[in-house]
Amino acid sequence: MARLYSDPLCPVACALDVIGEKWTLLILRDLTRNPSRRFQDLLDSLHGCAPNTLSARLSSLEEAGLIERRQYEQHPPRMEYVLTDKGREVRPVLKALKAWGQTLQAQKA
Amino acid sequence: MARLYSDPLCPVACALDVIGEKWTLLILRDLTRNPSRRFQDLLDSLHGCAPNTLSARLSSLEEAGLIERRQYEQHPPRMEYVLTDKGREVRPVLKALKAWGQTLQAQKA
Repeated sequence: MARLYSDPLCPVACALDVIGEKWTLLILRDLTRNPSRRFQDLLDSLHGCAPNTLSARLSSLEEAGLIERRQYEQHPPRMEYVLTDKGREVRPVLKALKAWGQTLQAQKA
Repeated sequence: MARLYSDPLCPVACALDVIGEKWTLLILRDLTRNPSRRFQDLLDSLHGCAPNTLSARLSSLEEAGLIERRQYEQHPPRMEYVLTDKGREVRPVLKALKAWGQTLQAQKA
């Protein structure tokens, strides 16, 4: 996986190397909310994300061990995506983002 | 400020609209660690960040009210950047990223 930042000593940069690219945290948000998601489910949920971008982000997440692909249909073969235990370790980041985002939304209301 | 995601109802997307662009969270990391930072300090710390990108990110953060510019020298006029109270509200996100990043680093060790 290409590194976003060349700062291997900094834990924040190391985390963002894995989940800092556009769309990645929203994919993890969806897989946190739903036990499993199909490609089209994710595409429908991620307004404006191109299919090839979604594929690239899913491959990176799979390579990083944060998600897994499971076959849910044989003919034709269809896949769904689920969080791994390692992927679930990201939930505190999503929780903190959600809390701060709610503060922003309240300030705009 | 151009929106990263068109998902105004989702607090995670709203948060990432403000702090989701590349380099932004690392700038906030630096300003959280140090009470104030000059442009060159930030540039030196952010390996690989171009000056014009740093300027753009600092303007966006200023526009969002997360940081402020303060003049620390009159002749010639020189500026430094500091977190605002609103900027300090992002610390739980940085804290969660740091904790998860440390987990990643430990797994690699």
